[in-house]
This record gives sequence, C-alpha cells and structure tokens, in this order.
Amino acid sequence: MSLLSGKKRVIITGISPQVDGGKYPAKVTAGKPMSIKASVFCDGHDEVKAAVVLAAPGGAPGSNHGQEHPMNLLVNDCWEYTTTFAAPGMVEFKILGWVDHFATWQKGLAKKLAAGQRSWVDLEIGAGLMLTSDILTDAEKEALSGLVQNISPNNTDSKAQESLYMFIEEHAFKMARYRNEELVVETPCTYLLEVSRSKAAFSTWYELFPRSAAAQPGMHGTFKDVTRLLPRIASMGFDVLYFPPIHPIGEKKRKGKNNSLAAGEDDQGSPWAIGSRLGGHKAINPELGTLEDFTVLIASAHKAGIEVALDIAFQCAPDHPYVREHPAWFQWRPDGTVQYAENPPKKYEDILPFNFESDDWQRLWTELRSVLLYWVDWGVEIFRIDNPHTKSFRFWEWVIVEVKSKNPNVIFLAEAFTRPRLMEQLAKGGFDQSYTYFTWRTGKVELETYLRELTETPMKHYFRPNFWPNTPDILPPYLTEGGENAHIGRLILAATLSSNYGIYGPVYELGINAPVAGKEEYIDNEKYEVKHWNWDAYTRTREIITRVNRIRKANPALHETNNVHFAVSTSEHIICYVKSTPPSEAGRGNVLIIAVNLDHFNTQSAWVQIPLLEAGLEVGRTYQVHDLLGGSTYRWTGEWNYVSLNPYQIPAHIFLVEQ
Amino acid sequence: MSLLSGKKRVIITGISPQVDGGKYPAKVTAGKPMSIKASVFCDGHDEVKAAVVLAAPGGAPGSNHGQEHPMNLLVNDCWEYTTTFAAPGMVEFKILGWVDHFATWQKGLAKKLAAGQRSWVDLEIGAGLMLTSDILTDAEKEALSGLVQNISPNNTDSKAQESLYMFIEEHAFKMARYRNEELVVETPCTYLLEVSRSKAAFSTWYELFPRSAAAQPGMHGTFKDVTRLLPRIASMGFDVLYFPPIHPIGEKKRKGKNNSLAAGEDDQGSPWAIGSRLGGHKAINPELGTLEDFTVLIASAHKAGIEVALDIAFQCAPDHPYVREHPAWFQWRPDGTVQYAENPPKKYEDILPFNFESDDWQRLWTELRSVLLYWVDWGVEIFRIDNPHTKSFRFWEWVIVEVKSKNPNVIFLAEAFTRPRLMEQLAKGGFDQSYTYFTWRTGKVELETYLRELTETPMKHYFRPNFWPNTPDILPPYLTEGGENAHIGRLILAATLSSNYGIYGPVYELGINAPVAGKEEYIDNEKYEVKHWNWDAYTRTREIITRVNRIRKANPALHETNNVHFAVSTSEHIICYVKSTPPSEAGRGNVLIIAVNLDHFNTQSAWVQIPLLEAGLEVGRTYQVHDLLGGSTYRWTGEWNYVSLNPYQIPAHIFLVEQ
Repeated sequence: MSLLSGKKRVIITGISPQVDGGKYPAKVTAGKPMSIKASVFCDGHDEVKAAVVLAAPGGAPGSNHGQEHPMNLLVNDCWEYTTTFAAPGMVEFKILGWVDHFATWQKGLAKKLAAGQRSWVDLEIGAGLMLTSDILTDAEKEALSGLVQNISPNNTDSKAQESLYMFIEEHAFKMARYRNEELVVETPCTYLLEVSRSKAAFSTWYELFPRSAAAQPGMHGTFKDVTRLLPRIASMGFDVLYFPPIHPIGEKKRKGKNNSLAAGEDDQGSPWAIGSRLGGHKAINPELGTLEDFTVLIASAHKAGIEVALDIAFQCAPDHPYVREHPAWFQWRPDGTVQYAENPPKKYEDILPFNFESDDWQRLWTELRSVLLYWVDWGVEIFRIDNPHTKSFRFWEWVIVEVKSKNPNVIFLAEAFTRPRLMEQLAKGGFDQSYTYFTWRTGKVELETYLRELTETPMKHYFRPNFWPNTPDILPPYLTEGGENAHIGRLILAATLSSNYGIYGPVYELGINAPVAGKEEYIDNEKYEVKHWNWDAYTRTREIITRVNRIRKANPALHETNNVHFAVSTSEHIICYVKSTPPSEAGRGNVLIIAVNLDHFNTQSAWVQIPLLEAGLEVGRTYQVHDLLGGSTYRWTGEWNYVSLNPYQIPAHIFLVEQ
Repeated sequence: MSLLSGKKRVIITGISPQVDGGKYPAKVTAGKPMSIKASVFCDGHDEVKAAVVLAAPGGAPGSNHGQEHPMNLLVNDCWEYTTTFAAPGMVEFKILGWVDHFATWQKGLAKKLAAGQRSWVDLEIGAGLMLTSDILTDAEKEALSGLVQNISPNNTDSKAQESLYMFIEEHAFKMARYRNEELVVETPCTYLLEVSRSKAAFSTWYELFPRSAAAQPGMHGTFKDVTRLLPRIASMGFDVLYFPPIHPIGEKKRKGKNNSLAAGEDDQGSPWAIGSRLGGHKAINPELGTLEDFTVLIASAHKAGIEVALDIAFQCAPDHPYVREHPAWFQWRPDGTVQYAENPPKKYEDILPFNFESDDWQRLWTELRSVLLYWVDWGVEIFRIDNPHTKSFRFWEWVIVEVKSKNPNVIFLAEAFTRPRLMEQLAKGGFDQSYTYFTWRTGKVELETYLRELTETPMKHYFRPNFWPNTPDILPPYLTEGGENAHIGRLILAATLSSNYGIYGPVYELGINAPVAGKEEYIDNEKYEVKHWNWDAYTRTREIITRVNRIRKANPALHETNNVHFAVSTSEHIICYVKSTPPSEAGRGNVLIIAVNLDHFNTQSAWVQIPLLEAGLEVGRTYQVHDLLGGSTYRWTGEWNYVSLNPYQIPAHIFLVEQ
C-alpha cells in the first residue's frame, strides 16, 4: 500500500506560471503585478483552502522555509495569489492545500440556520472541532467544555444552545488560522520564477559598429567618437546601445571586404573573428581605445539613460591566445590544424569553434564564465550572445545562472535565428530575450499567427521576443523593395507589437538597402569594413523612430508584449491590434488601438472590428481616439470603425483611447 | 559546478503522449497503432539519433531494462516511434538521444564529395571515428590502421585514398549500431502508458434495473428474467449490460416511491441504499436470485456477446453490516448516530458515506478493494462507479491499479457529473471511461466546442468520454420537449460522436419522458419502485437504435472518438462531421460523413463544407456517398454540398464515402 497518508484528500494541479513542470523558470518582471494560479480541490463538498509558499531557491527539499501566502478562489476550483516582486532574482514556490473542516461546518450551519434547522448536535460538532484544534487558551477550552456539557445530551434548552453558539461565533475567527498539518498536501516539486528587472521586458535597442563612428571619413572610429554620439541616440529614444564584438580581430585567415577570402592590407576584418596576438575575449581592440575609454563611455551612456550591450561570440580566430594556451578546448584535425567552422561544402577558416565535448569541458566552462564576469565587473549588464545555438545548451543553463547569481541585473539576448525547438530551448535555459522570426513575417495573417504563438502558448511564460526589422546579417527583401516606406512601416510594427525591439541603426535611418545579388544581405557590409555614416542626416525614418520611441516611453501598454489583441480587419493590407494595461480604480487602463498599412506603395483602407472587452470599452458607447503619431482625433462608436492609411505620409495610427 | 557531464549535448523535450509530465498514464488501445513522439536535438549542426525504451513499470530507476526501439525524424526536430501493443497492461517508456558523430561526418563528406572536395584529412577523421568505436574486429582495425598509415601525412596519392574510402564505405553500416554511451542523454523520468483492451475504447451500453425485468406485471424481476431478455438486447447491438447495485437494500430510513421519506410496506427502496441484515457489498439481493443465477446470467450474456457491468456505490444504508463491524470507517455524531450524507439543508438519512479521513483508512481501502476483487472473481470485468468524486481521489488511484494488476481487462466508468477539474482528475487517476456534459450540450456550437475540448486538448490522452442521452438520474428537458424525434436525434449524436455511449434503455426505447415538475428527473422513477416494461414494444426509436448500432459495429471510424472533424454548416440546426480511419495501402480509410438535424420539429437544410483532407478526399473530385441509415446514395463534388433532414423521418445522414 502507498506510503502516502491515505487521509490526505486534496489534489493540486494546473499550476501556472510554470515551464516544463517546474524544470525551467517562468519569467516575470519586477515591479509588475503577477499571479500564481493552481487548481486545488478535494472530493466531495468540503471547504478547501490553498496557499503559496515563496522562497529563495535552494532550500532543503520538503523544508517549509519561506513565506506562506493565502490564495483566493476564483472560479472552477482555480485559486490565485497576486503579488509584485520588487527586485530581480530567482524565486521558488510551491502550493499547499488542505480541507478546512471548520469552514465546512460553518457553511453547513449557516444554510441550516437559514432553513430554520438548529440542533444541539451541530453545535456540539462545531465545538468539538474547536476543542481538538490548538487555537484556544486553556481557560477558553474550559469555558467551551462547560457550555457543551450544559447542552448535551439532556439539557437542550435554547438558552444553553444560544450561549454555545455565541461562544463559537466569537472565537470562529481564530479557526481561520488553524489547520491540521497532518492533512496538508503540498506540490511534490517546487516551481521557479525568474524575476527580471524591467529592462528585460521593455527595451529599445540601437546597434552600431564603434569603428564606423569617426567624425572624419577614412578614420577608424573609437569609443570617444561613440561618446560624442550619445546625445543623438538618446534623443531618438533608444536605451540600449549595442556593439558588435570589441575585441582584437584575428589576423590569420582574416576576411576582406564583402567577405572575400583574401584581406587587403588595410582591411580591418570581421569583429566576430575574435582574438590575436593583442589578446582575446577580455581584451579591447586598441584601435577602439582603452579600457578606460570604454568605462568612460559606459558612464556617459548611463548618464544619458543608455546602457551599453556587448556582443559575446564564444569562438576564436586562429590566432586567439586560447588556441595556444588551451589546445584541449578545440578539435584537432589529422593535419595538425584546428577544426574550423564549416557547413559543408562551405568553410569558415577564420572561425574556430570550441569543442563542447572536450574532456577539459569544466575548465572551458569556467573560463567562458570568467569572460562574462569580467565585463560585468567593468559595468556591462546586457549581453547579446552570438549564435548561442551552436554552443551546448547545458553550458548556457549553467553559465547564465552563475552570472546572474553574481549580478541579477544582467540581461542575456539570444541571437539565434534557427529551428523553433532550439530557439525555445535557449529561452527556457535562461536567455532573457530572444531574436525572432519577425524579420520574415510580413503578411497580416502570418504576423497575427506568429504573435499568437508568442503570446498565447506556453512560450509566453519563458520566451521574451525582441523584434528586429534588420541586422547586419539580415536585409529582408521587404526593405529592399519597399524603401523608406517599408523601413517606417516595419519599425512601427516592431516597436508596437513587441515591448523589446531594436534596429541596426545607421543603415536603417539612412534607408541603405542594396543587397548582395540574390541574397538577404547588405552589400559592402559593415561587418567587413570600416564605414562612415552621415550622423547629421535627418530622414523621415529618423523622425518617425523618434516619435514612436517617445510614444513607447509614455504608454505602459507598450511596456509588455503579451497584452496584444488583434482586431478583425476587412483588408489584408491593414493589420490592427489593441494593446492595453488592466483597468484601475482611476478608470480604464492605458489603451492603444494601432493600425498599420502593410502595403508600402498604395493607400489602403479597412473596416476594423475593435475587441471592445480587451480595450476596456463598452458596447454602443462613443469614445474618442487620439492619434499619438499623426495628431488627429476621431470620435468612434462600437466595434466597427474605418481607417485609411497612406504609406507616403504616415503608414499607421497609434490611437490613444482617451479617458 | 553541475555534476552532470557537460559533454552531453542532446536535449529531449515535448514528449507525447504524456499526462502531467508522466505522473499519470496516457491511455492507448491494444491492437491499435499509436505513436510516441519527442523533440530531440542538439546545438549546432551535428546529426542526432533518438530511441524509445519500453518496459513494464517498476524497473529500478535509471536501469536500462526494457527494449530499445529507434525513432524516426519527422520534421522540426520531432522524432516518432509507432507501435501496436497486443495486450492490455501498463507500459513505461523513456527517450534516449545522442549525437552521432560518424553520421555527421558521413553527411559532411557526401556534400564535400558532391562539391569535388576530397581530402585525406577528412578520410582520416572518418577512419579515426571507426577506430575509436568498438565495432571493428581486431583484424579489421589492423587493416584500417594500415590504410590510414598509407595515406597520411606524406603519401596522399589518390589510389591510397580510394582504398581507405572503400574500406570506410564498406564498414559504415556497422557504425549505425555504435554510440558513445558516455554521451547518451535520457529523460530524467519515465512516462506511463496504459494499454486498454478495445472495449475501453469502443462500447455500447444498455442500462436496466433487473428488478423490473419480470415477465408479469406486479412481480419482482430476477436475474433469470434478465437472462431471457439477452437475445433482445444483443439483437439491438448492445455489448455492455449495466445494472444498478444488486445488493440487499437497506431497510432503515428506506425511501418510498418518488423519493418520499416514508417507505410503504411494499416499497423496495433505492438500490443505492446498500446493505441490510441480509448483507452488504458482496451480497446479492435475494429477490433478484442467487449468486449462481448471477453467474449463469454472466455466462449467458457472454455467449450473446454482452458483458455485464456492475454499479459499485461505496456507501452504506444505516443497517449495512459495516456500520456495526467497522464503526471507525464512519463519522459519528455527538448524538451517537453516524453522520449521514447531507447537502445542507438537505439530508439523505438513508445514505451513510465512508469517512476517508478515518484513522483506520488502510483497512477501509483494503476492504473496498476486496469488494471489487470479489466481483471480478465472479466474472465481472466492467464497473460503473457511483459518484467517485465523493470518495478520496488517492483511494481511486490506488485501488484501480490494484484491481488491474490482478486483471488488466477490468474497465472502470466514472459516474461523476461534477465540476470539470474533478472529472478530469478521476480520469487521470485511472478511470477508463467517464460520464460527460454531453447530456446538457444540445446546440451546434456547444457540441462542437465540447467535442474539441475532449478530442484536441490534453484531455484526449486520458479522458475517454461515454455519452449518455439519459440516465435514471437525468431526464434532460430536451427529451421531454422533443419527444420521440429528440430521443432519436440525441441517440444518433451520442452513438456517432463518441465511440462509447449508452442509454438507460427501457424508458428511452419507449420514449417515457414525464418529469418531476420543474426538475430534470423522471417522475415515478424506477430508482424507487419496481416497474414493468413492455419489452415487446417495437418503436421507431428501437428501430433506429438497432440500425445505428449495426453501423457502429461495421465501421471502424466509429470505434474511436478523437478522430472527429467538424464541417462548416450554414445552418445552426445542422451539425456535420467527418469520422475517419487513416488511409492504408488499399486506399482511403473508413470515412463517414454524418449530418444531424438538431431541430426536432422542423425539416432543416444546410450547405456543409466537408473537410476534404480529413476525409481523405481530393479537391475537385466527385465521390459517392451512401447513407447507411436511410439507404440513399448521392454523388458529391468538392467541399460544399447540400443536406436536408426531416426529423419525423430520419433526422440524420450517416454517409459512407465509397471507395
């Protein structure tokens, strides 16, 4: 027979949020209310109570450390506890459930009294429950026993009953604190929450290559040049400034312009070919400046409201010091060379991957952790990890927890454009944000389907999308064909569909969109050469970016991603969605209605059916919407309303529903 | 640092079928193909292999007992293994995954050869993988080593390369059987499957009260009377004959006709008030006959293709022997009486529930198990459990496994009409079939929504619905209002939407439908009195039941429930769905298109959009459909077709799509 006490009758199931049965943490945001839910019930009709126990991870299994909080019954046996975590870090929780016999008795008695049935038997049962609990003082127990003796079984006069009833009523509140610990059921495992700082949930990224930041053409840009650009980037509303790798670039097998195999003498190479005689992942390319210049830049950025994000690419150029110092971390070929990256028949001889099946894996993991911690020590709290899906998943699970245990503010963005299961696994394993398929989702139905997958499936608990309309690696045909109008349309979609978004900035602002013939790639790519950009150019795209980022900052509905609800639209070219925060005592929350024209060549119009419930609107009522982007104001009524958008002016409305 | 070997790179996730992460078994059917699926992948581009290990439950954790079967890659990193289990019983499985370096090397080499790149280095890498495996004989190793020495590094002539290449090619097949056990990843827990005999998945129930089976009015029916009815029931196509409890009925607090508090002298009481001086749950009400009569009945039924199902109600009349013999199993009140069932202010003084929080719970559980095993010993293999949700869930989890470990043919039907989470939990905990909300789902949208919940959510893996249009406890208003037409329509829905269905037979056939005023209950209910039915009556309902059951038997598409796909219908009164088995080499599977008129008073028509893919039909092709119910034949083309149904004739088509 089962060792479990057969007297325990409560069942706990349907726990949310959870990822893979508690194996991975569900992500929540510091400072935002979140709810823990569970189905808690027992057989029959007894009253049940439930509680959640919150604790820091690592307590002894089964130990009752941590703080217990009562849960509230919603409907259909679903219990809820809502809280707001103040600070980032890991939290573990478990759920408790128990039968509350006194509450069952109270409820039954109330019904019987309402039906005019009061018997001394029922009162004595209630008194018995009180006496066998440990909530009464000795004096109270004595008093209660006396009252019970007065009524049972021979003296059943109503005055004695009334006295007993009064006593029970008076002391009933104490029973709410009592339970028989022997009958308490708890979840056999604990569930993890990762509380992230708010920037993990809401961030606006600008990518540039510091080496192209020089004021003069022909010069190699420096951190000092970037420092000069900070006010410009801040004024456009970006709060994360992300650099490709800043380390010394390999000299052996260095690539030339346009990824050519033979580098010219002046070619600076690809920043992702990391390491040379000048150092590896903890060194700075001296052409960019010194470590001091870098820390000055970080401090200046901080003052401007910008955080610097570093690109970490765990791979080596052939002349990286690791190759000499730690040959065991690489795979060696019979010809005495290190196995380079390849995707047969293509060879990438300037890139040597680490061998994660190395017998020396422990030292490798430890060293890579030290790289991250080194930059954390110098003030970097955001990492964009290059191609994480080509390194062992278990390594990431380990190293991310390690780094965050030193500094819970650190944020990791996974740069993986790969198969769905791999992208999901990286997010489960600890990455705070993830690149997405947004870049290739351009039609109305595919955008809606993809957003539903991200925000309505279990992914919503662990995968925080970061939408990029372009990257140095990806120039979608859409931007090539659609020109400035497409750049503006895609930016508005990225910035309003996802609370995290970014652009590879200079080319995006300038609308540079010439591809390598037949490929989704920029020609004369900055990855392989130093460029010079006209930072003073003032384009329509730049103007819209600035406006959109200002709108994002001012509207909390755009600070989260899972709060999107699509409107039915009568045109395949017009996508329309509501983003909203929950209503409060002050009235409806922050409610935006956003409509975007996906056709960059023609004005398109549609009737859109606003999801009133999600927008906090009432059926049949008139409401005023104010376009935060274009400035116009309309009075709308009910569900169906009309929009018309010209891509040569502003291809979108971002309507604020006015209070 | 993690104790786990950091060299293990494979991730296994997304395992199906599973219930609550392997905590409960997923249900499958003996003799039917089933698939185990999992997402198995690793970082990077290496080739991965996966296998499933099947075993009987109870092996030592982590032990490698059981049979390993390779899985096949479908798409998106999803791997599949398909099998057919021959016999009922529990099976546990786990998934293995590993990187196959030789397969990776082979794939890369093939691409390089196709591009004209063959180098001795690649060949020597392949040879090295062979030499470090354990698949070559000593002689082969020596030969291979010799060939390797011939080519590297100085002698790179193409003849030596060719010889080495030929050797590797010739012995490559052996490498498919090799893996480095050190790098194999396995799921940390095992997952359970419960293989049920086919009747758990496909059964046709007829409920009658044996006491009303007498040939003469005014007589108490017996098992012998029921034996006489068997050919009739078999000819109507039923294969489970289910009786309310057959035990002695309590005499204390016995209920009279129409549930009146005071029983008359001749009142036989409710069969669910179990136990008297004549015995308890292991005794037979002597008015029904002897144990021998019962076993004769079971044997006769068996010959007629019918199994007898017993109703087990774990509760006691006040004069049940348990009350005297095991007072600890009940809750006692201060007035010296046992707590009866109550739903305040209502009292059910003829029913005493067991106290599952009894200190003597172990003896209680053991005794209740012995009741089930007693009837199993006498040949009963199907139990309909009365109100299981008012007994401890953990008791059921335990006792069902116990009974099935003695006889894996035993089938349990949960008679719970209660809140959703409780119904789900009973099914997770081992009940093979469950009563449902079908009884109250009458509109098109609510039927479709409910069926999707049952067949497309995780419920499909553990909850086998059994649809009942009526029971002795439930006379839906629909049947009262709609008369014979409604009885026929609801029967067709039950019998074709669910592979398990049943009726409370005599009243259904006869169309008896007078309710207690204002209630969904039969008046003059057979629960409280002996009735006499005209078994010779030949109603339209009886005729349709017989035809429908014959169609069910002949069409495998009706032997499962999860294979339903709804057609769009232009009328809210016409529901239409496809039921099909997968295509085989012989052509399309068994494909039925079913359309039912939900309006019992008027002819209704609709255009229906047949889901061609699910029906195994081609776009634009003409196909012939033959109505197995009405006999007509039509030639249909494409998706949209027209139906018109008169409820006074036959309210449904059950079309067989002809080959």
